[in-house]
Amino acid sequence: MYPKNAWYVACTPDEVQDKPLGRQICGEPLVFYRDANGQVVALEDFCPHRGAPLSLGFVRDGTLVCGYHGLEMGCGGKTLGMPGQRVGVFPAVRPYAAVERHGFIWVWPGDQAKADAALIPHLEWAESPDWAYGGGLYHIQCDYRLMIDNLMDLTHETYVHASSIGQKEIDEAPPATRVDGDEVITSRHMENISAPPFWRMALRGNGLADDVPVDRWQICRFTPPSHVMIEVGVAHAGHGGYEAPAAVKAASVVVDFITPETETSIWYFWGMARNFKPDDAELTASIREGQGKIFGEDLEMLERQQQNLLRYPERGLLKLNIDAGGVQSRQIIDRLLAAEQAATGIPVRQIA
Amino acid sequence: MYPKNAWYVACTPDEVQDKPLGRQICGEPLVFYRDANGQVVALEDFCPHRGAPLSLGFVRDGTLVCGYHGLEMGCGGKTLGMPGQRVGVFPAVRPYAAVERHGFIWVWPGDQAKADAALIPHLEWAESPDWAYGGGLYHIQCDYRLMIDNLMDLTHETYVHASSIGQKEIDEAPPATRVDGDEVITSRHMENISAPPFWRMALRGNGLADDVPVDRWQICRFTPPSHVMIEVGVAHAGHGGYEAPAAVKAASVVVDFITPETETSIWYFWGMARNFKPDDAELTASIREGQGKIFGEDLEMLERQQQNLLRYPERGLLKLNIDAGGVQSRQIIDRLLAAEQAATGIPVRQIA
Amino acid sequence: MYPKNAWYVACTPDEVQDKPLGRQICGEPLVFYRDANGQVVALEDFCPHRGAPLSLGFVRDGTLVCGYHGLEMGCGGKTLGMPGQRVGVFPAVRPYAAVERHGFIWVWPGDQAKADAALIPHLEWAESPDWAYGGGLYHIQCDYRLMIDNLMDLTHETYVHASSIGQKEIDEAPPATRVDGDEVITSRHMENISAPPFWRMALRGNGLADDVPVDRWQICRFTPPSHVMIEVGVAHAGHGGYEAPAAVKAASVVVDFITPETETSIWYFWGMARNFKPDDAELTASIREGQGKIFGEDLEMLERQQQNLLRYPERGLLKLNIDAGGVQSRQIIDRLLAAEQAATGIPVRQIA
Repeated sequence: MYPKNAWYVACTPDEVQDKPLGRQICGEPLVFYRDANGQVVALEDFCPHRGAPLSLGFVRDGTLVCGYHGLEMGCGGKTLGMPGQRVGVFPAVRPYAAVERHGFIWVWPGDQAKADAALIPHLEWAESPDWAYGGGLYHIQCDYRLMIDNLMDLTHETYVHASSIGQKEIDEAPPATRVDGDEVITSRHMENISAPPFWRMALRGNGLADDVPVDRWQICRFTPPSHVMIEVGVAHAGHGGYEAPAAVKAASVVVDFITPETETSIWYFWGMARNFKPDDAELTASIREGQGKIFGEDLEMLERQQQNLLRYPERGLLKLNIDAGGVQSRQIIDRLLAAEQAATGIPVRQIA
Repeated sequence: MYPKNAWYVACTPDEVQDKPLGRQICGEPLVFYRDANGQVVALEDFCPHRGAPLSLGFVRDGTLVCGYHGLEMGCGGKTLGMPGQRVGVFPAVRPYAAVERHGFIWVWPGDQAKADAALIPHLEWAESPDWAYGGGLYHIQCDYRLMIDNLMDLTHETYVHASSIGQKEIDEAPPATRVDGDEVITSRHMENISAPPFWRMALRGNGLADDVPVDRWQICRFTPPSHVMIEVGVAHAGHGGYEAPAAVKAASVVVDFITPETETSIWYFWGMARNFKPDDAELTASIREGQGKIFGEDLEMLERQQQNLLRYPERGLLKLNIDAGGVQSRQIIDRLLAAEQAATGIPVRQIA
Repeated sequence: MYPKNAWYVACTPDEVQDKPLGRQICGEPLVFYRDANGQVVALEDFCPHRGAPLSLGFVRDGTLVCGYHGLEMGCGGKTLGMPGQRVGVFPAVRPYAAVERHGFIWVWPGDQAKADAALIPHLEWAESPDWAYGGGLYHIQCDYRLMIDNLMDLTHETYVHASSIGQKEIDEAPPATRVDGDEVITSRHMENISAPPFWRMALRGNGLADDVPVDRWQICRFTPPSHVMIEVGVAHAGHGGYEAPAAVKAASVVVDFITPETETSIWYFWGMARNFKPDDAELTASIREGQGKIFGEDLEMLERQQQNLLRYPERGLLKLNIDAGGVQSRQIIDRLLAAEQAATGIPVRQIA
C-alpha cells in the first residue's frame, strides 16, 4: 500500500537520454523518454498493437517508436502513426505526469487530474551554487516503509555502520520526535564526542582538524509520500553544534527518495548534498563512494527483515521511543491512504 | 492451450544418440532414446518404481535403464525387468509415438490411437540433394502463438532486425493473406529495392552481384499445429522476382517448428533451407550463424511481450491487416482445439 | 511432515564459533550461537524489536546482539537490554533446546518440555580414540524421506555410484529387513566378489591386499526421526566376512543425519567413521574426499525425483522387497507423527 497521488522520484536525468527507460513504479510498468524539446514523457509501457514493452523501442525525432512493429506513440498516449495503418481508433495508453526538476525526474502514478507540479518538493540544495550533490540508486526487495523506519531511526548506524558513521554515543542520546502537519522531524544531538571515520574524512575535506572533540547532530525530516531528508554534521566542540559557524563544521543533507516498485521492493535514490567546497568534484566523488558503501550495508538487513515479516505477518513490531519517527511517518501515510480510498471507494488494507 | 493430437518436432537426431534425452513437450515430461535398431522411442519420463526421471538413466543394448535402481523399461512403456524383481504387475508408463523423419524427431503428445506417421508434413527440401539445411534451437519463455504471430507478420524485421534483414520497404508493401483449408498464406513482394545486408551476403554466396537493385519476396505458410515455412529471397530486379530464373536470384525457405513446452514456453527449432550451392558447407555454416544472430534478436521482445500480456490478461490485442496471418492461424488452432475438446469433453479456454 | 519432538543435527561445532549461524530447521528459522561459557544456544531467528534476523547480529561477551539496533537477547529468549530502553515488557522469542555432543550440535524443534538430552543417540565411534570420523554437509531440495529411502536401499549404488562403490553383486544379493522397536535394519551380504574401487582404496589404506576376493556387507540402521547408520566393509574372502578379524578387513560406519529444512528440502550431514588407522589424518581426508564425490552423485537424482513426485502427487510408489527398509522406516515416522498429532490435536496428513 502506497499513496499514488504523489510525486515520486522515478529516475535521474542521465538514465533518460537517447534511449527510452522502462521502470516499474508503484506497481505500474512505465516508459520514460524525451520528446523533441528534450522534455521527459512518461507512459504506460505497453504498445496498444500487440502488448510489447514500448521501452524496448527507440526515440526518433522525439517520438517513441515501438521496437516490434514500428507503432509511433504520442506523448499523450495516443498513437501518432504506424506504417500502412490508420491509427485513429487505436486504444490509447495511459500517460503519466512527469517533471524534470532539481536533478531528478518525478512521476505522479495516481489520478492525473491531481498532478500539480507545484507540489514537487522544493530542494534548496539542488538549485544553489553553494551546494554540491552526489548520489546513487539501489534496488532493494523490501516494503518502502521499512526503509522509512530505517532512516527515521539512526540508532541503527551504531550497528549496521559501525566502522564508518556509527558510534555508541548515538544510542546514548535519546531522539526527540515531533509532527508538524504532514512532516515528521526526529532529531538527536551529541556533544563533545569523537568524530567517527566518515566525519573525520569530511572534516579533512573541509580543511578542518579531525582529531579534536566535536558536537554532532542528526535531524531527520520525513515528508510524504516517502522522502527523508537528514541534516547531519559535526562541528568542533563548543562552537554551538548545529548552530556553529560554517568555518568550524562539516555539514550536509542526506537525501533519500524511496520509490515503491511493488509492495515489497523499492527504487532507493540516496545521496548527499553539502554546502562546503561545492566545487571540489574530487571531494564529491569521494563522499559519494563512501556513502555508497555505507548505504549498501543496509540492503541485506532490510531484505532479510522483509522476509521475516512476510513469514510472521501477524506479529506486531515494537514501537519504542527510537521508532517514533517511523511510527509517526506511517500514521501520515495511513491518513493519505485513507483519503485516497475515500475518494475512490477502494478499501485500504492497513499494514502495521 | 495447444492441440495435442498433432506431430511436433521434439528434438533433432543429434540430441538423441547414446544417452537418453529428457524434454518437456506440451506440458508432459518425456524421455527420448534409441532402441537396438536405432529407432527413436518416446516415453513418459517417470520410472514406475520410485518416480525418478528415466532420462537420468542410460541405454544398454537398446533398452532404457533407470539410473536409480536399474529398472529396465521397454519401448512400449512396460517394465522388462529389474534385478531380483518380478515385474509383471509393475504399472506401465505412457508411450508416445515418435518418428525420425526429414532430419527431425517428431512426437505426438495426444491420443496415441490417432498418431499416423502419414500426417507428418512432407518437407521437400529435407530429402532432395538439391537443397542444403542448417538450423538451431532456442528455448523461449512465451506462448507458442506469440511466435506464430511474429513469423506471420514480418514487418517486425524492419524494427527487430534493422541491421540485417529489415528495411523500410517491408512496411510499405502491404501483405496479402489468404486461407486455404488448414493452411494460412501471407505474402509480400517488394520491387526494385536495395538488398539488406543478409541478402547481399546470400547474393555473394550464390556468386551474384550484391550492389544492384533487387526484387524481394516473403511468402509465409502456417500449417497446424505450429509450423511456419517462409519462402524468402531476392532476384536481380526486372527478371520476374519470385518467378525469376535461378541464375539471377538467391532464395531459401525459413523453417520454423514451434513446439510448446508449457503454456508460456517453447522449444523453437529454426533453420534455413536453400537450393543454391547445396554442397557449400561453409556457406551453410555462414548462413546458419547469421540466422542464429538475427533470430536471437526476437527473444527478449517475445519474452517481455509475454510478461506484459500476463500482467494485463483482459486487454485485447489489435488485429490489423499485417496481423491477419497470425489471426487466421489462431482461428485454425482454435478450431482444432474445439475439435479435440468435443472429442474429450474437456472444455477449452479460448485465449485471444 | 516431520516429527518435531526429536533431536536433529542442526550444524557442526565449527559452524558456530565467533559468529551466530542462521539456519532453518523443520520449517523454523533458528539462530545458533555460543554463550559466555561456550555453550550453544538456539533461538528463534527474529528480533522482537523490528523482526530483523538475529543471525545478522554478533556475539558480545556471550550475549547475542541484534545487528540492526543493538537489542541484547538472552539465551532464554528474553531481551536482556537495549540502549536507552526498558525491556521488561518486550515479547520473548522462542528458545530451543540445543546440545553439543558427539561432534554435532543437536536441536529439538518441537515441544520444549519434552526435550531430554538423554534421548540424543549414543554414537560410540564419536567418543572412542579407536575411531576416526570425517564428513560434510549437503543442502538438497527433496523431502527428507526420499533420502531415507535412498539410504535404506543400497541397490542404487550399482547405478548411481557405478564407478566407486557400485557393483552388480549388490543387485543379486537380496536384502533382509527387520524391525526392532523403532529401529529398522536392512542388511546384505556378498561373498567372494571383487572389491569396487572405493573399497580397494580402503583396503590399501589399511595395509591390506586389494586384488584378492572379498566378502562385503552393508547393514543399514534407521532410527527416528531420520538417522541412518550403515555398517559397511569388506574382508578378505573366507575369513568370516562381517565377523572376520580386524586384521583382514576394512570396515566403517556410514553416518547420515538428515535434517528437514522445509517439507521439500534437507540439510544432509554425511560422513564416515572407521576403526582402523584412526590416527591417519591423511587417510581420513582421502576417504572424506572420496565419499563427498560419491554422495554428491545422489543430489540430482533426488531433486529430480522430488520434482516428478510433486508433479504427480497421486501416483503411488512401488514397494518392492528392496524398498522394505524405507517402507518400514516411513511407518515408524508415521506412527510418531500420529502420536504427535494425538498430543496436539492437529491433524496429520499422511504422505505415502
